[in-house]
Amino acid sequence: MGAINGNEFINRVNQLKNEIWFDGQKIEGLISEHSAFKGIIQEKAALYDLQLNPKFKNEMTFLSPETGDSIGLSFLQPKSKEDLIKRRKMIEHWAKQTYGIMGRSPDYLNTVLMSFASSAGFLEGKENCYPENLIKFFKYAREKDLSFTHTFISPQVNRSHLYLENSDEPIAAKVVDVSEDGIVIKGARLLATQGGITDEVLVFSVGRFIFNEDEAFAFSIPSNTKGLKFICRDIFAGGTSHFDHPLSSRFEEMDSIVVFDNVLVPWERVFYYDNGEVAEDFIIKSSFHAFAKHQVVTRQIVKTEFLLGIAQLLIETINIGEYQHIHDKVSEIIAGLETMKALLERAENNASLDEFGFMRPDIFPLKVAGYIFPKIYPRFTEIIQLIGASGMITLPTEKAFQSSIRPDLNQYLQGATKSAEDRVKIFRLAWDLTMSSFGTRQTQYERYFFGDPIRISSDLYKSFPKEEYVKNVSQFLNLKES
Amino acid sequence: MGAINGNEFINRVNQLKNEIWFDGQKIEGLISEHSAFKGIIQEKAALYDLQLNPKFKNEMTFLSPETGDSIGLSFLQPKSKEDLIKRRKMIEHWAKQTYGIMGRSPDYLNTVLMSFASSAGFLEGKENCYPENLIKFFKYAREKDLSFTHTFISPQVNRSHLYLENSDEPIAAKVVDVSEDGIVIKGARLLATQGGITDEVLVFSVGRFIFNEDEAFAFSIPSNTKGLKFICRDIFAGGTSHFDHPLSSRFEEMDSIVVFDNVLVPWERVFYYDNGEVAEDFIIKSSFHAFAKHQVVTRQIVKTEFLLGIAQLLIETINIGEYQHIHDKVSEIIAGLETMKALLERAENNASLDEFGFMRPDIFPLKVAGYIFPKIYPRFTEIIQLIGASGMITLPTEKAFQSSIRPDLNQYLQGATKSAEDRVKIFRLAWDLTMSSFGTRQTQYERYFFGDPIRISSDLYKSFPKEEYVKNVSQFLNLKES
Amino acid sequence: MGAINGNEFINRVNQLKNEIWFDGQKIEGLISEHSAFKGIIQEKAALYDLQLNPKFKNEMTFLSPETGDSIGLSFLQPKSKEDLIKRRKMIEHWAKQTYGIMGRSPDYLNTVLMSFASSAGFLEGKENCYPENLIKFFKYAREKDLSFTHTFISPQVNRSHLYLENSDEPIAAKVVDVSEDGIVIKGARLLATQGGITDEVLVFSVGRFIFNEDEAFAFSIPSNTKGLKFICRDIFAGGTSHFDHPLSSRFEEMDSIVVFDNVLVPWERVFYYDNGEVAEDFIIKSSFHAFAKHQVVTRQIVKTEFLLGIAQLLIETINIGEYQHIHDKVSEIIAGLETMKALLERAENNASLDEFGFMRPDIFPLKVAGYIFPKIYPRFTEIIQLIGASGMITLPTEKAFQSSIRPDLNQYLQGATKSAEDRVKIFRLAWDLTMSSFGTRQTQYERYFFGDPIRISSDLYKSFPKEEYVKNVSQFLNLKES
Amino acid sequence: MGAINGNEFINRVNQLKNEIWFDGQKIEGLISEHSAFKGIIQEKAALYDLQLNPKFKNEMTFLSPETGDSIGLSFLQPKSKEDLIKRRKMIEHWAKQTYGIMGRSPDYLNTVLMSFASSAGFLEGKENCYPENLIKFFKYAREKDLSFTHTFISPQVNRSHLYLENSDEPIAAKVVDVSEDGIVIKGARLLATQGGITDEVLVFSVGRFIFNEDEAFAFSIPSNTKGLKFICRDIFAGGTSHFDHPLSSRFEEMDSIVVFDNVLVPWERVFYYDNGEVAEDFIIKSSFHAFAKHQVVTRQIVKTEFLLGIAQLLIETINIGEYQHIHDKVSEIIAGLETMKALLERAENNASLDEFGFMRPDIFPLKVAGYIFPKIYPRFTEIIQLIGASGMITLPTEKAFQSSIRPDLNQYLQGATKSAEDRVKIFRLAWDLTMSSFGTRQTQYERYFFGDPIRISSDLYKSFPKEEYVKNVSQFLNLKES
Repeated sequence: MGAINGNEFINRVNQLKNEIWFDGQKIEGLISEHSAFKGIIQEKAALYDLQLNPKFKNEMTFLSPETGDSIGLSFLQPKSKEDLIKRRKMIEHWAKQTYGIMGRSPDYLNTVLMSFASSAGFLEGKENCYPENLIKFFKYAREKDLSFTHTFISPQVNRSHLYLENSDEPIAAKVVDVSEDGIVIKGARLLATQGGITDEVLVFSVGRFIFNEDEAFAFSIPSNTKGLKFICRDIFAGGTSHFDHPLSSRFEEMDSIVVFDNVLVPWERVFYYDNGEVAEDFIIKSSFHAFAKHQVVTRQIVKTEFLLGIAQLLIETINIGEYQHIHDKVSEIIAGLETMKALLERAENNASLDEFGFMRPDIFPLKVAGYIFPKIYPRFTEIIQLIGASGMITLPTEKAFQSSIRPDLNQYLQGATKSAEDRVKIFRLAWDLTMSSFGTRQTQYERYFFGDPIRISSDLYKSFPKEEYVKNVSQFLNLKES
Repeated sequence: MGAINGNEFINRVNQLKNEIWFDGQKIEGLISEHSAFKGIIQEKAALYDLQLNPKFKNEMTFLSPETGDSIGLSFLQPKSKEDLIKRRKMIEHWAKQTYGIMGRSPDYLNTVLMSFASSAGFLEGKENCYPENLIKFFKYAREKDLSFTHTFISPQVNRSHLYLENSDEPIAAKVVDVSEDGIVIKGARLLATQGGITDEVLVFSVGRFIFNEDEAFAFSIPSNTKGLKFICRDIFAGGTSHFDHPLSSRFEEMDSIVVFDNVLVPWERVFYYDNGEVAEDFIIKSSFHAFAKHQVVTRQIVKTEFLLGIAQLLIETINIGEYQHIHDKVSEIIAGLETMKALLERAENNASLDEFGFMRPDIFPLKVAGYIFPKIYPRFTEIIQLIGASGMITLPTEKAFQSSIRPDLNQYLQGATKSAEDRVKIFRLAWDLTMSSFGTRQTQYERYFFGDPIRISSDLYKSFPKEEYVKNVSQFLNLKES
Repeated sequence: MGAINGNEFINRVNQLKNEIWFDGQKIEGLISEHSAFKGIIQEKAALYDLQLNPKFKNEMTFLSPETGDSIGLSFLQPKSKEDLIKRRKMIEHWAKQTYGIMGRSPDYLNTVLMSFASSAGFLEGKENCYPENLIKFFKYAREKDLSFTHTFISPQVNRSHLYLENSDEPIAAKVVDVSEDGIVIKGARLLATQGGITDEVLVFSVGRFIFNEDEAFAFSIPSNTKGLKFICRDIFAGGTSHFDHPLSSRFEEMDSIVVFDNVLVPWERVFYYDNGEVAEDFIIKSSFHAFAKHQVVTRQIVKTEFLLGIAQLLIETINIGEYQHIHDKVSEIIAGLETMKALLERAENNASLDEFGFMRPDIFPLKVAGYIFPKIYPRFTEIIQLIGASGMITLPTEKAFQSSIRPDLNQYLQGATKSAEDRVKIFRLAWDLTMSSFGTRQTQYERYFFGDPIRISSDLYKSFPKEEYVKNVSQFLNLKES
Repeated sequence: MGAINGNEFINRVNQLKNEIWFDGQKIEGLISEHSAFKGIIQEKAALYDLQLNPKFKNEMTFLSPETGDSIGLSFLQPKSKEDLIKRRKMIEHWAKQTYGIMGRSPDYLNTVLMSFASSAGFLEGKENCYPENLIKFFKYAREKDLSFTHTFISPQVNRSHLYLENSDEPIAAKVVDVSEDGIVIKGARLLATQGGITDEVLVFSVGRFIFNEDEAFAFSIPSNTKGLKFICRDIFAGGTSHFDHPLSSRFEEMDSIVVFDNVLVPWERVFYYDNGEVAEDFIIKSSFHAFAKHQVVTRQIVKTEFLLGIAQLLIETINIGEYQHIHDKVSEIIAGLETMKALLERAENNASLDEFGFMRPDIFPLKVAGYIFPKIYPRFTEIIQLIGASGMITLPTEKAFQSSIRPDLNQYLQGATKSAEDRVKIFRLAWDLTMSSFGTRQTQYERYFFGDPIRISSDLYKSFPKEEYVKNVSQFLNLKES
């Protein structure tokens, strides 16, 4: 088998008949034809097609060490810096296809699963841990080119430090039964992007949100597992016109609440359970953060390039390139772009073999990128709004351009260097990226990609090695040992 | 006649049969029943009803000095500080009815017209100026309680300093003919909020955008004047459900491009024309900025109170009131609220009679408010997003709550102190104000209310009297006179 | 007796012979002639002279209700808004004399003592509380026009939440003995500005820093009390030349560590002790914050005016008033100035009689001012540095201007509108306020005036009444009662 | 000859007997013994010693291609990436010796001269240009290990865009005569750091400040050339105690106004003159910015490490590492440090051979570093002040610790993890770096290192290649060619 193309992806997702609830209705029929999902499924299919496109196949796939089939390069477990760079190029190809807009392109979750499998050694010999299941499942997914979503956040019921869930009925998903066949899960998890339109759901626990042992587990199950429900949020696509909604008509990925209604997870799919310490440590000590951030930062760079292009195109369209405050604003984007690129390069340059024998990027430049981007991305969207000014509101529709009022639009909405139609296209794109409900969800998504910004800076402070610098100053001052 | 109620407003607007183009179609039928306008027309009608509501009438109307009819207090030309405070209370009443969300409540433009009329003396004896037309029209509008939009910005074709429009066909609206009957206007103006759903369009020129004498004019004409067209932007209301779109279903005001297709403005409606110097100076020396800002700042205070309430409600809903960073964020809103209130109070305290005999608020505290709000309002919306976090995305619809999936929603989306339904209502409101396309247009609107922030700070710097402070320092240093 | 003049102040301070340690030496001889204190003592004497200056006496003093003597208006217990405004004018007069630079002008601590006395009722009937001592001492100080410093912060040994001092020898000042004669204090307090050059030291406890009952007390004792030592920090005055150090040569106030070496506080001077709850509540419920902030904000406004004058003078000197980014920077100062003025006005407008019968300014606008100023003042100093650019470094001395190199200085350091000498004077002032060690201490002082900015925002959030706004939003959404 | 040691440096500078004016006096006697210069001359001598220290010599020198002598590696003209990295290591060694505090360590100006010589080809065949002089002088300087200052800014008389100097007597240095012997310069230049204590002064013109051809020149002359005067600013060292002034007692570099009193520059020292176009282009097209920024960024990284060490040492001293806002503040420094390192690495990774055959670092990451650092460095100093809080003011002197008051200091100024003496040392260092007049000059120096931040962002915007990104967006939107 091996790497699939777009059609194979679509067919497979259609056959699953996952239980998806959208706007109060359970979806029946082909999911790929549903108006809320058609756009994203097509864009995702295009990504699968790209990996088999002869022009790219060489850089998007590699030969399976087991079957010899061409399999997706996002499953490659890197053992050298060259492997890392191959991975980055693969990520770039896919990111460029979607201008960095699709957050859950297949490489993201394939990378997550790869990082888990590449850290399976950590689970060896620990209680209730099944590293062999993890490795076996990884190989299975890799050879079948399975698609994934994941979910690791508990419902946002009560965010107090002191809160301990104490209801009779589970809210946060937890193990409610353990049997010969597997573990049984009841409760919910937030917020699975593309939930329902992937083959599998990867479920795991992030240490800091765990309060009970019964919430500490990791597994993967097919999306159509009995008892599994995906409840969609409201849709953020404004419609299907590429003119009116150039981004949301294509890239609305949908997020869903994942409900586990006494879902049985068979033992062969359980990676660990009932072990809070492992749940906490696995995320920290595995290569999850290193590889996931390597993927994310690469995508965010491509997205930043897209924003820079939009900013400059707006400037040229209404001819404001002479203003110093415009220079200053775009310089912020340029500086952000170069910074993200430099951090990524540094992470690759300083990569080293981890304890499991894989080439892990240096985590600190990536952590810094993960600290910076949630601050600069929202600012970039603000800059685009400040450049676009009233043009971000003066947005007629495609139908208006197709009507008898078109001559007026042509005359009164022309740009300094663009026809009215092109001018409106440009502003609608800027608007769809930064002001439509699709765009603002993108902003929130980038802001919270790796969690609460507050926690991110605490983690950066605590984990960064500061001793050498303290020692250096202490020596300068001839301090006594303390 | 005098102050009207909601029905009178609706009937009058329906009868006008203005030429409005929406999504490529010319609107036919009752505008008040059109899905894109129904919400806002009803909300506006409610404002008119409020002014005749016995509970408020006393504070919302006064007796016409000419007819003795009860007329809208927003037309009151203040001659004392008491008058000013009466005006502010009237503005507050209307603003509270719409939570500060409706930018173009009737008082805004009534106030603008009042300020013009109260500064008519400035036009006395100047070339091509007709102060008597202005005063007469003001009285007419006041007694009829006419509704208005206005427009004063030229199309955003080319924003270079050096740009001079030089096309055969006008783009920016200009005088193309002068006859016995009046002046003839051709070209377009941006961006009339509620354009097409008001009785009249007030058209004038703001000095800094004038490059040609033929673009320097001021007049008012009925919205259904021959040749006048309103071309709407895309709609930013997400739908008609108050649950799903608590704000946009009610307060989408629509903005339109106003096209003048050889529109004849009869002489009696011309206030001035073909006089660039007057156009420049009238805006600066009239009480326009003082009274308009007095209205705007009052409304913005009510809106800020609404934001503060939303922020705190989010905090209580998910129980995050213990976090120091939350305190810090809400403190920003509190500080902004108190600051805006204090500046408004100071403007009233230091009001003084202007050269035309009217009680004009001190302009500097209001200019400062106009300098601050475009910075703090977007920040407040960001704070709400940061408080809401993933909850700003996990937004099921009203229909979902009405479906069989409701028990799951009830269980998994409950808040610490709220039911799931109330929790979702609260987050949808926060979202509609800050992240929906309606909300982001609100942000852009507040950001640009009085023009480009860059120009606002230059104006503040240049107009603020600094001499005394320089002199004080010079004396401390015993500087020689220079 | 009553209000004193400068000479009386100087003589009294000289006679005290307080134990002051400066740069490793115990000061002997007249403190008013000591190079480290001469400048500030003279400037302070000038303030006392001003209050008896016939031109100001009327606004700076009032007749004692007990003796009929003219006494300092900073001791006036306001019972009406007129009284409040009288107080503010008095504060302004003194602040203008020192351009807002002297933080501990007499009115500051007189106001603090007045607020304590005006809240003595709070102490009535509470354990270990002596309101009658407080009132008696207040009257005594008022009639004698005593000068004060105060101290309420414990040494910065360990700022962890969890820290409990546990050493054999006290570090933080505490009660170590109670006898017939009074209470005995041992330990230290930080950071008494002007410590050692005032008649008295007012000592009290701020709730949030109290961890032990034995640190909870309030009293006042003469600076020359046996066992009381003032240990000065390093001096931040650059020298005595007014040309070179226009501010630090005059306004270096010095801060000192106050050491209590088994100091006996006689009972008649004890206001309360050994009552942590009272210590905590008295600061919150008394009028301390309201009146102290009323004084501080008034002074900070005068200081901001001084900064604005300096900024504009720099701009004129090197002729950079045409640049938009300069407009933007100065607009920040203007906005800050108007905001502070407006908040002060609002606090006065909304003043109301407190439970003790005194006219207390509205605390919230003052709290907001106290939240804003620590952020904007450092920014203003940065703006001045950004305006001054390299000119903030190119600073020759007075002696250079008096030497044979002067013609070169005259030629090469001339400004666009100023002689070289005046130009250097202006830049040296800008430097002394923002970059000299005197200036940076001023910045730190304003930043921490009312404590850690982090705590200030938590206090603002917690104390501000938000219920009404929450209720308003809840009604809009028709939420169920929760 | 070749690379010199510290003594040789000191002797050479002493022998020059340059005309230096300090505080109104012409300096006589050994400059190395003068209290204002002793510290910096010793620290600089230590750098020269380090380059001959056997432990470092290998990495600090290379063999002269002409003489075979060991010469300073800062003169190395890099032809490969290895050369670049060698250069960076050399810079690091010197920077670490001074903790990044010495701005004008020898490598800075050696690098500037090297970049000029390596771009001499640009001057070939252009009017009034003498590339052979430049190359010859470079070799001479390299073999003698000459020390330099430079100057390229005109006096800050009038910074208006429209200003043209028009006085009879030159203010900005210009050519006033051309003869057989050379060109004669009259006027002044700002602001030569270490002016007067180096062998040579390198003088050139930066395009954007040139308004007249006669101000367009480049040359180097000995500091003791007839007619050359160095007028020092006021001194920013607080004294000679390393305890009290750990930085300024060592690293006060002094800045001076350079006056040219009809100074003859012999032809062999003229690199170009009277050619405004060349003056403008040489700075842009030469490798000046690339190599100078490569040195500067390397030093700034070392300085940032020093700041990070200080911040963390403060935190440990008073035990505040548990606070989230502290994490957030230090995370800013960590992010800045990693970002600067990453940008430097990227510049080296993407280095390429320039048109003159030398390996030039990629300019854009370095420009971004030069755009970022002037913003983050001042913020880092603010963070240190915010961490230090009142401890930044409570600063007793060395003498106080040597006096009988020491036991009190020991008790009351102890830190959670440090003795009082060490605690005060640490805070005095933090203060000297961020709040003393030495420290604030450092801040201003970093802020303006490569000129006005406003111009830096305009340059970044204008020079950065944006076309590709615009094209990418245009293709996404299917725009017509424009």
